[in-house]
Amino acid sequence: MTGSGMSTALLTDHYELTMVAAALAAGTADRRCVFETFARRLPAGRRYGVVGGTARAIEAISRFTFGEDELRELADRDVVDAATLDWLAGYRFTGEVDGYPEGELYFPGSPLFTVRGTFAEAVLLETLVLSVLNHDSAIVSAGARMVSAANGRPIIEMGGRRTHEQAAVSSARAAYLAGFATTSNLEAGRTYAIPTAGTCAHAFILLHDSERAAFAAQVQALGTGTTLLVDTYDITAGIETAIEVAGPELGAIRIDSGDVGVLARQARAQLDSLGARNTRIVVSGDLDEYAIAALRAEPVDAYGVGTSLVTGSGSPTAGMVYKLVEVEGRPVAKRSSHKESRAGRKSALRRHKPTGTAMEEVVYVVADGEPEAGEHDRSLVVPLMRGGQPVEGLATLEESRRRVRDGLVSLPWEGLKLSQGEPAIPTVYR
Amino acid sequence: MTGSGMSTALLTDHYELTMVAAALAAGTADRRCVFETFARRLPAGRRYGVVGGTARAIEAISRFTFGEDELRELADRDVVDAATLDWLAGYRFTGEVDGYPEGELYFPGSPLFTVRGTFAEAVLLETLVLSVLNHDSAIVSAGARMVSAANGRPIIEMGGRRTHEQAAVSSARAAYLAGFATTSNLEAGRTYAIPTAGTCAHAFILLHDSERAAFAAQVQALGTGTTLLVDTYDITAGIETAIEVAGPELGAIRIDSGDVGVLARQARAQLDSLGARNTRIVVSGDLDEYAIAALRAEPVDAYGVGTSLVTGSGSPTAGMVYKLVEVEGRPVAKRSSHKESRAGRKSALRRHKPTGTAMEEVVYVVADGEPEAGEHDRSLVVPLMRGGQPVEGLATLEESRRRVRDGLVSLPWEGLKLSQGEPAIPTVYR
Repeated sequence: MTGSGMSTALLTDHYELTMVAAALAAGTADRRCVFETFARRLPAGRRYGVVGGTARAIEAISRFTFGEDELRELADRDVVDAATLDWLAGYRFTGEVDGYPEGELYFPGSPLFTVRGTFAEAVLLETLVLSVLNHDSAIVSAGARMVSAANGRPIIEMGGRRTHEQAAVSSARAAYLAGFATTSNLEAGRTYAIPTAGTCAHAFILLHDSERAAFAAQVQALGTGTTLLVDTYDITAGIETAIEVAGPELGAIRIDSGDVGVLARQARAQLDSLGARNTRIVVSGDLDEYAIAALRAEPVDAYGVGTSLVTGSGSPTAGMVYKLVEVEGRPVAKRSSHKESRAGRKSALRRHKPTGTAMEEVVYVVADGEPEAGEHDRSLVVPLMRGGQPVEGLATLEESRRRVRDGLVSLPWEGLKLSQGEPAIPTVYR
Repeated sequence: MTGSGMSTALLTDHYELTMVAAALAAGTADRRCVFETFARRLPAGRRYGVVGGTARAIEAISRFTFGEDELRELADRDVVDAATLDWLAGYRFTGEVDGYPEGELYFPGSPLFTVRGTFAEAVLLETLVLSVLNHDSAIVSAGARMVSAANGRPIIEMGGRRTHEQAAVSSARAAYLAGFATTSNLEAGRTYAIPTAGTCAHAFILLHDSERAAFAAQVQALGTGTTLLVDTYDITAGIETAIEVAGPELGAIRIDSGDVGVLARQARAQLDSLGARNTRIVVSGDLDEYAIAALRAEPVDAYGVGTSLVTGSGSPTAGMVYKLVEVEGRPVAKRSSHKESRAGRKSALRRHKPTGTAMEEVVYVVADGEPEAGEHDRSLVVPLMRGGQPVEGLATLEESRRRVRDGLVSLPWEGLKLSQGEPAIPTVYR
């Protein structure tokens, strides 16, 4: 269980509560507000971002209620006054959320999760919404680059051990969203119905009296379709033993160390010479999108990716912010040096060439009216919550996964380059 | 709630279960094993690591049991066979754990969490133990560098919005362990009894008809001891208004943008000229250990740190591994190219100069006997679990926090340099 059913109301910052207290006392808590979630920029050098976590954020908002435990904690700590505690006891988000569907590409300024409601009800959600979207978007954005680099070969997510135990579950979900084939994480399998996979670690080989005994035990229990880990002692000897034990119908071998490109070539030749032409080669061991791309010409059948996925391959957070852009219909924005924001509730459309290639992200203030949309342009913002409830027909994980795939296809070719560069399409403010 | 009471048994990798299944079938599951958790190296350029998460890992192991839901999931997915499901139904860790107390410094090879038990019971814990230790150690290690750079000035942790919502809670705990003064995270306050803090964001200022009205509302609700955020419009005007509204007894101002060093100096002069000599200056906005160190000469009273803390300041995972080192008393280790490990159950002591300065980390195989320890040397490994239960008198969070502080004092002075370098003390294998 990752906590479904439990209150998420304390997964937030102290100051969200003190702001509510002060606004209630001042009589300003009920002003109608619009908060916009967006990234000021993409992580350094990245050419696109992928929205991740939308469904998780909506679900977490639904559980954002203050039960007795939460109220007692706030009272005991003197976080807010009694009047505010009373207000919180009745709290339930009743507002509207509009945004990009999960799996959509985003660029600097894209209004990807916009919350409308009273100040008090909307400000309370800031920290939770950002935590979910910043984490999941960072992971799916990194994962999409890996999927793109793998060029159709399957990737197995196996990074749970390199990140927080609950972040691991969400990372597995984000990896699947990005297009990974399977995950090692069993809780992600349970919570999100994602296919899980895994066979054996070096410890299993070392446990047994010989590599041969270990392979025999594994084949006995898991069948000849299993994946045997052949690099505990000597890879060539390991492969020979593997085929002797399992026969040429062995499902796969895995190589987890060394120069996996060279080793994969040698392994393929050896397997073929042993008649194991259908035995696949899985490689793992500190792979990232660059290593995957470098292996494109090698006889590799699948990749196992861990650390680089769950750490966002150098960009562990998407850096999104949640900014107040309208109060009672009046556009507002911070005006001092740095970190300026653009006032007013916004929406967006993406312009495309007739070929379907994306050209620009047009971000516009809703009050100014929608810009003229051409035949190949596409509105990006959809309703996500109405009256505090998720809208009917929210995208499933599978649908969002297809959206990622379609989005990558729509990028201009420079957008898929792994090297550092500018965003694949410019953001144009109208 | 962060999930106390819930089963942690699926927060693991598929292959841990298939290995148990194969070992049960082969009759090797009951072999006595020793698994050692260590880091092959510190994150690039880091001079020390700090062990974080020990208490959380022990608590998570206590909840590693397979209830009906978990067993049904494994059966439905065909992860393991019926005999293994039966075995899992009765699973409870009954072995021993020895390791470094939480908050202790560690270096490459330090045996910081060693699990002894049968193969099956110990291998199952690999993923969960690594998730917890890799995450928390990454955060506390980064946090300790920030505390060291702050040189006694308090740091407020406010990074929850930049990491997974549950990782945020553990990050707040790790920051407190590192020596941070407070956190913004309310769930961390509840779960770990850590002091929480927070007052106001720019949204609160923008909500009101004027900055003056916002300040008045905040002071009215939170008192003159509060912290007013003065950089929404114009900082000089903001400070003037703040003191007009709150009087010279205003607790603090916060500056969240711009060149905070220059701004802090100007703000201090202005506050002093307004008679607000005791009004403190809090700065925040993308601070990391380097920015904190650069502000040492400026009139800053406290730092707010977010993103850099929760992302481990460039090293979001500690990269620890959990390796089988002994089977039935026989030392074992992977022997192929790369990623070699040292066989045999190990312990460690740290040698110090008579002044108390650490000199070297001595890692030795227990079976070879303990090296002679001088008067100033210190054994590092303590019992953590016995017979599957946490030992009595495990360190509290406050005790572990003092241990971090004492550890930093014991480092040779080069060890506290923020620049990239070698580990502060060498690891010597005996």
